[in-house]
Amino acid sequence: MNIILASQSPRRKELLSNLGFSFQTVSLDVQEDYPQDLEPSMIAGFLSQLKAQSFRELSPGELLITADTIVVSGGRVLGKPTDKEQAMSMIMELSNSIHQVYTAVSIRTIDDCQTFTDVAEVEFLPILKEEVEFYIENYKPMDKAGAYGVQEWLGMAKIKRINGSFYTIMGMPTHLIYQELKRKINASDAQ
Amino acid sequence: MNIILASQSPRRKELLSNLGFSFQTVSLDVQEDYPQDLEPSMIAGFLSQLKAQSFRELSPGELLITADTIVVSGGRVLGKPTDKEQAMSMIMELSNSIHQVYTAVSIRTIDDCQTFTDVAEVEFLPILKEEVEFYIENYKPMDKAGAYGVQEWLGMAKIKRINGSFYTIMGMPTHLIYQELKRKINASDAQ
Repeated sequence: MNIILASQSPRRKELLSNLGFSFQTVSLDVQEDYPQDLEPSMIAGFLSQLKAQSFRELSPGELLITADTIVVSGGRVLGKPTDKEQAMSMIMELSNSIHQVYTAVSIRTIDDCQTFTDVAEVEFLPILKEEVEFYIENYKPMDKAGAYGVQEWLGMAKIKRINGSFYTIMGMPTHLIYQELKRKINASDAQ
Repeated sequence: MNIILASQSPRRKELLSNLGFSFQTVSLDVQEDYPQDLEPSMIAGFLSQLKAQSFRELSPGELLITADTIVVSGGRVLGKPTDKEQAMSMIMELSNSIHQVYTAVSIRTIDDCQTFTDVAEVEFLPILKEEVEFYIENYKPMDKAGAYGVQEWLGMAKIKRINGSFYTIMGMPTHLIYQELKRKINASDAQ
């Protein structure tokens, strides 16, 4: 199987590599729009599938992986912040409360396209304004939904509890990917 | 404050460093025995305190950190495996079930010694014998309670869900340490 990861996220590359798979990466230029009446829990799946379908035709033996992560707080979707002020207000919204992280993954071959979504809950302790400023200045979380990385300083110092997969919060539900890729590779070897 | 981390665990060093604290490390030679009738939930705290008390007298301005992590499965304590066979049987016991990880931290100064314990729940998917063999051969988890690292291949491929702090499972409840060290450093600066 020739695995293609269509993502520019360094976290996703690192996770797929640590799972033990060899792959190449490509970047996609997709306008990430979704219907405004879509349930928050469905958005990551919609966008991951949109990315998968925007890629060229696949050859036999090729397997494409796309993914999307969104953060939902109080029913409201937090995407990637556009500037430092927005990053600050997103993190202050997450402070001292519980939010949800949805990561969807699509696996496309010449035969089909499967999408699965995993959700994890994250509980933050109270965060001071000066701590958010320190974090934004030193970690530049502008490329992350919800303006934070669970594996970075803010996640270490301020997350009290997660309920779900840590790697889903990082951007890739590694346990689901591992199972599905192993199944597909075994099926392909058996042919 | 002159922080001293009494631990040889590379994970603990990495986490305390990523939290943003400067410190030196020392190694302790402590026989890790505990009363056989101690509740499993109390053992990590007992051992962490034992380590803290075994260290030399502290000077004003010195702060000692010790820690201990234990894994409890079905009420039974899993320590560090003594050989590959034991590592194999520990991991097979954790397969397809839920266990608890307790990490305790003690913070000692010239004035007092505080110990706090955090617990996290881990749910593993079913693990095949060949997957355990691959993991033990490639990751050498003999220095870890329960014979696995949550941040390693087995954790990525096989953990379905955790309920609690990821870093507590790795060996250090970073959110609790951060709060407590900040409080102590602020109090010391105010003197």
